[in-house]
Formats: sequence, C-alpha cells, structure tokens
Amino acid sequence: MSTEPPRLWFQVRIGEGRLGPGRAQLLALVRDTGSLSEAARRMGMSYRRAWTLMEAINALTDAPAVETERGGTRGGGSRLTPRGEALLAVYEDLRATLDAAAAPTLAHLAALDDRSRRGED
Amino acid sequence: MSTEPPRLWFQVRIGEGRLGPGRAQLLALVRDTGSLSEAARRMGMSYRRAWTLMEAINALTDAPAVETERGGTRGGGSRLTPRGEALLAVYEDLRATLDAAAAPTLAHLAALDDRSRRGED
Repeated sequence: MSTEPPRLWFQVRIGEGRLGPGRAQLLALVRDTGSLSEAARRMGMSYRRAWTLMEAINALTDAPAVETERGGTRGGGSRLTPRGEALLAVYEDLRATLDAAAAPTLAHLAALDDRSRRGED
Repeated sequence: MSTEPPRLWFQVRIGEGRLGPGRAQLLALVRDTGSLSEAARRMGMSYRRAWTLMEAINALTDAPAVETERGGTRGGGSRLTPRGEALLAVYEDLRATLDAAAAPTLAHLAALDDRSRRGED
C-alpha cells in the first residue's frame, strides 16, 4: 500500500447535482475573501471555471448559495447567502463527522499491508 | 431541491488508487457468482472493462484481491482472495457506518428547501 494512509473522499449528491470538496472549498474561499475571482485564483482555476462551479452550486437547492455583484469588472464582490452558509456548514459538518466515523476502519485497512508483510495474510 | 433525498457518495483513496461503490459491487459479484464475466454481465459492462477494474483493485494493496483461473474461455472461474474479502468488508463496513453517521446532516440538508418554501430561509 502507499506510504500515505488511506483516506475518505466524499460528496453529497442532490439529484443530478454534487457538493464535494472542491465546491466546498470554493464556497469557503468566497466567504473568506468576498471575491469569486480571488477564490478562483487561490484554487488555481480560471474565473470562467469558478463561475460555472458557482452556477452549479446555486442550482443545488431552490435558493442561490452565492451572490455576485454586477457592475464593473471581474473584481466585483461576491458573498455567500444564508443558503450558501448553510450548505457550507452541512459539508463541513459531514467532513468532521465522516472522517471521525471512518477512522477506525481506515486504520484497519492500513494495517492489512503491514500484516501481509509479516506473512499473516 | 430534487424530490429524491440528498445522499452520500464516497470512495476510499489509497495513494492513486480508489475503492468506490462500483469496484465494491464488482468484488461482491465476483464473490457471489465466482465469475468475473458473470459479474461484468450483471453490471452491464464489458469483460474488458471488468478486467481492467479488477487489475486496478488488485493494485490497491500489496496483495491481489481477485484470483482468476486461466485456461480456456472467458468462463474461467474467479474468486476473492482473503485480501479481496477484507477489502470488501472494509467497504461494506464504511458504507453502513458512514450512511448512519451522515443521516442527521443529510436530513437537515433536505429540510433546507422545505424551510425555504415556507419563506423561513
């Protein structure tokens, strides 16, 4: 097994929509920076890509998650709506809850190779 | 929100490898049918695709998960090794554990739209 321990990757699926770690990070960066373009820059993605992701996130539920000020340049401010704050809270709660819940099983999985190396498997 | 409730999707990442629901289903079907070709058929995938997945699963850890009998046709038997049984058990344990752990948060998420429709959000 790789020297790095096995880890959990998850997303929430809502109909055809998804909320995974990348979209959660985008929400967190919009919250922290007040700017979709700055959030995009910090994630190493184009503004166009970030805008597309934002539209997908806004379509997840029946209320938008991110509001972007029109008028002027790309630098116009963006912020999370109450719905966006709620979605991010849901994701962060799941991350903490699921990482804790998965830890014993992942530790067992990591130990399989160690047992194998000792000839026990 | 979609009428179907939000649901959790997860995979275990081991280095560059992944063990998600499709690969877990393939392992379960090999266990249950004793045949990679029958497992492929039941999943609606080509034998070639199933073989590629099996090789990827076998590379997840330092012991193979599936043994396939050579000699003859595609109908040659396949079975899980002890490592394959262990990997499948890990995945099924995680599925039960994580679904239970996520349920309250997913219920909260599902309720957001209901609140929104009542004008509370």
